[in-house]
Amino acid sequence: MPSYQAPVRDMKFVIHDVIGAARYADLPGLDQATPDIVDAVLEAGATMCEEVLQPLNVVGDREGCHYANGTVTTPKGFRQAYNLFTEAGWTALAADPEYGGQGMPAYLALAFNEMVSSSNMAIGMYPGLTHGAYRAIHAHANDELKRTYLPNMVSGKWSGTMNLTEPHCGTDLGLMRTKAEPQSDGSYRISGTKIFISAGEHDLVENIIHLVLAKIVGGPEGIKGVSLFIVPKFLVNADGSFGARNGVRCGSIEHKMGIHGNATCVMNYDGAVGYLVGEEHKGMRAMFTMMNEARLGVGLQGYSQSEVAYQNALIYAKDRVQGRSLSGTKAPEKAADPIIVHPDIRRILMNLKAFNEGARALCLEAGLKADLANHHPNDADRQAADDWMALMTPIIKGFLTDQGFAHAVNAQQVFGGHGYIQEWGMEQFVRDARIAMIYEGANGIQALDLVGRKLGMKGGQVLMAFMADVDQAIADAPSEFAPLAAKLAEAKDHLTQGTMWLMQNGMSNPDNAGAASSDYMHMFGLVALGYMWLRMMAAAKSKIDAGSTDPFYATKLVTGRYFLERMLPDTTSLLAKVKVGAEPLMALAADAF
Amino acid sequence: MPSYQAPVRDMKFVIHDVIGAARYADLPGLDQATPDIVDAVLEAGATMCEEVLQPLNVVGDREGCHYANGTVTTPKGFRQAYNLFTEAGWTALAADPEYGGQGMPAYLALAFNEMVSSSNMAIGMYPGLTHGAYRAIHAHANDELKRTYLPNMVSGKWSGTMNLTEPHCGTDLGLMRTKAEPQSDGSYRISGTKIFISAGEHDLVENIIHLVLAKIVGGPEGIKGVSLFIVPKFLVNADGSFGARNGVRCGSIEHKMGIHGNATCVMNYDGAVGYLVGEEHKGMRAMFTMMNEARLGVGLQGYSQSEVAYQNALIYAKDRVQGRSLSGTKAPEKAADPIIVHPDIRRILMNLKAFNEGARALCLEAGLKADLANHHPNDADRQAADDWMALMTPIIKGFLTDQGFAHAVNAQQVFGGHGYIQEWGMEQFVRDARIAMIYEGANGIQALDLVGRKLGMKGGQVLMAFMADVDQAIADAPSEFAPLAAKLAEAKDHLTQGTMWLMQNGMSNPDNAGAASSDYMHMFGLVALGYMWLRMMAAAKSKIDAGSTDPFYATKLVTGRYFLERMLPDTTSLLAKVKVGAEPLMALAADAF
Repeated sequence: MPSYQAPVRDMKFVIHDVIGAARYADLPGLDQATPDIVDAVLEAGATMCEEVLQPLNVVGDREGCHYANGTVTTPKGFRQAYNLFTEAGWTALAADPEYGGQGMPAYLALAFNEMVSSSNMAIGMYPGLTHGAYRAIHAHANDELKRTYLPNMVSGKWSGTMNLTEPHCGTDLGLMRTKAEPQSDGSYRISGTKIFISAGEHDLVENIIHLVLAKIVGGPEGIKGVSLFIVPKFLVNADGSFGARNGVRCGSIEHKMGIHGNATCVMNYDGAVGYLVGEEHKGMRAMFTMMNEARLGVGLQGYSQSEVAYQNALIYAKDRVQGRSLSGTKAPEKAADPIIVHPDIRRILMNLKAFNEGARALCLEAGLKADLANHHPNDADRQAADDWMALMTPIIKGFLTDQGFAHAVNAQQVFGGHGYIQEWGMEQFVRDARIAMIYEGANGIQALDLVGRKLGMKGGQVLMAFMADVDQAIADAPSEFAPLAAKLAEAKDHLTQGTMWLMQNGMSNPDNAGAASSDYMHMFGLVALGYMWLRMMAAAKSKIDAGSTDPFYATKLVTGRYFLERMLPDTTSLLAKVKVGAEPLMALAADAF
Repeated sequence: MPSYQAPVRDMKFVIHDVIGAARYADLPGLDQATPDIVDAVLEAGATMCEEVLQPLNVVGDREGCHYANGTVTTPKGFRQAYNLFTEAGWTALAADPEYGGQGMPAYLALAFNEMVSSSNMAIGMYPGLTHGAYRAIHAHANDELKRTYLPNMVSGKWSGTMNLTEPHCGTDLGLMRTKAEPQSDGSYRISGTKIFISAGEHDLVENIIHLVLAKIVGGPEGIKGVSLFIVPKFLVNADGSFGARNGVRCGSIEHKMGIHGNATCVMNYDGAVGYLVGEEHKGMRAMFTMMNEARLGVGLQGYSQSEVAYQNALIYAKDRVQGRSLSGTKAPEKAADPIIVHPDIRRILMNLKAFNEGARALCLEAGLKADLANHHPNDADRQAADDWMALMTPIIKGFLTDQGFAHAVNAQQVFGGHGYIQEWGMEQFVRDARIAMIYEGANGIQALDLVGRKLGMKGGQVLMAFMADVDQAIADAPSEFAPLAAKLAEAKDHLTQGTMWLMQNGMSNPDNAGAASSDYMHMFGLVALGYMWLRMMAAAKSKIDAGSTDPFYATKLVTGRYFLERMLPDTTSLLAKVKVGAEPLMALAADAF
């Protein structure tokens, strides 16, 4: 059976010493998160995840969810675990105190969510989706709706969902058919079918608050006529008691490759009562609040599976003896050496370690940027943080999930044949990780978002600000890191060349941008991780310079060097592919395939 | 439900026009395979695979094998399908006529096996393993054993297995504990436990012929004391009738990530009667006959899953409408354009197509080399073909399965959310493809075999011969392909640089060879596919020059160009990684991870 130990030590390092969250401890909304509180939350979170959620991960996968007559039963133990989770207040962690939340920063919630996802991704999705729905309602709904729905969503008594996809419409939401008919009391009646609705129906909570995209009858065509509605499973009376069962029913659940413990539902809306969130026909804006948060969460899922897969591969690599080291016997007392002595096993483990730690640092930086975007008193700082988030969201989602999956596959490889057997649990990490590349906008869509929308934001200034940050990190690097900083400078130069190529060729032929997009996104992701690594190395070095002998810091230096020397060079080939352009991709007529 | 259409047209092209099998039609053993016969076999094979095996692929995955009290029941329909398969003579295709085989060439059997594997990998493993066991017995056993076992294995009445792995010993077979005690009648008694035995027990045949590695009591320590034995499930009397049930029993079957239709067994040998194959303590040599054949077959499994995944992704990409082309609406009559218009979808499809066709050409070339190694009357030619096979086997196994899996994952991505749902069948291709990276020597072992054994064979002459072939293809390329031939020359130069680096650094520190091995193997695989592509393009061009207007040839040129321009440049980054050396990988103490 696989195990999991939350990387609390590394999270503390990143929060305290790399992103330097304490610098902002005087800002409203961040002022409660003193270093002591942060540490205490991380430690308590680790206990919850390791002791309550993780033991149910295999159980959830084996048993899956059960559907019968519109109801969904979660796997054995999920309900008790969920209750412990909510009773301990974890659903309220980063929510608004006005609605019962603890008002903790986003970066801390992200750190906790990594643990949740590593320990049990399927169960973590129930509160995860609730928080996304909470965010959209909090940002866009009127006060009455907020008062009615948010407190119970914050406490976890109710859960939330997001309903976008229909059978014929996924990426292209303009094709949507679900309709909303205005009623005389100001509410709407929602009718249509939504598919792939995670946590659409289940037995963990008393009420489920669906956020549903639909078109108001008579409104504009296409995406411009889409509005967002709250559709509760049970109507809620003015006094907070339950009214009638609403006209929304789960028609079936999907049989999926992974995340078996989470119910993926077909939801049928049949004249269900819905309440408009925000303005008419502005549903996409409201939904993007939710989706951007969800995309960060999904990026985190990508590396969270790689992290837990790494931990188990490492244990196996130290335990399993097979063959002798190429450079001479290392464990003469054993029949063979532990396989961690073999360079190709090392390569896999170092790739995993360097990726996971870099990804974590990038996500926690994103969390801090989210906090600054929400709370910084200075307009310009708030806007800069928001811009950074906009730029980095598709990279975090697309790059970290592509790579997280690939690394989970490599971790499975360390186990040889045992990696393919369910009993060892490694193949579950791979199956679970796979969905993160798909949902919340398939990674191809993330890449298009990056090259099509984000690069050109504000005339390229957002991109330039990131590039300047990278230059600063290179300039700030201690002199002994100069050869490694030069590696980052080289990779950044590749990214700049790729960007220039896109500017010169993507306007004249948009297919050039599309053809380059995925490889460009990966190049960007590598540079972003290289940037975080250089910062981590600088932080570790200042601890060592200050006299620390904790091997944690020396290990950081070795791992960072590995990333910069041996993983970052992938930008070379990626740039070559970016520059090939669309023509060789588009040359065949569709019939010629 | 997924579909499959055997790529008969492409196979004919490769066999007749690229590898030019007919050039050898006068050699004994190849003389029956006239072009007409080859075409007829491919067409009949396609019918068998499309109509009998493929419809059971999903069934086999859903139902899996059942274990009860030592017996294994295969999924519903497998037995009837297997009977149709054997009755039509497919198990005899490439077997020796002396034992009832049809004596067809290995390249033709490989083409057929690709179809089998694409249509139903799990069922294909039963006859696949039988053929491997047949080969080892045919090459190493005495005449009496051959007469006793081969005819029924060739007809498919009996099946075969290979038993290497034990719970504590996979790669490192020197740790083996299964023992063989010599008996006065010349037989042995075999005792021990073997795991991961594919097709170890099942209900498709009357008898199962296990090939078992074991150590003769009192023999040399480690790998030098390993011998190979035939251990039949039922003993066979001199008259061919069944004797006693032998002391070998299936203890359980594994629950695996994929290939659910194939029984992966724990086999318990308890004083089972065994017969020595070949010489005492020379079991590894005999086993390698089987393993090299099996490794080719596994390489083929890798791209066969990518092939069937491609076919289904292509159908979906033409059918699914979503969004509009970046370069202007392509299907104004529809609500949206088919997603094949989007460059990022094209990128995935072209990657799949270019990889699959290149991989097929390489495997069929390998098949022809196997035929030449067996049948060429000239010693030097036979040896050269055998050397080529030795060099290319780890590349075909390691590179084609790593890439085949990655491409199957990308094909799944084309489906968006539907790719994650079992119903669509794409996730099964991914799960099934995953095992090919692991069994018959995990891919890390293939990479070590390549850099540790194969590169240095005959003082590097085997490698040089391949390099000379690549140079020849570049020199022979029509002048209009010069810019593309230059791409191959550049990639070959990277491979040469990598090889030089290994020569200079791998001897002094073997860890350098290990650290570089996987990336070097991938670089080699890319060059090998580039080489096949240049040959395919030349063959297609001569058809066009001869007046053919079949769009098949024009498509080959476009696809080949895509491979050379957009996939081959990965050698750049791979070379950079090769040259990094072992130090950054090995710098951390095991405890510091």
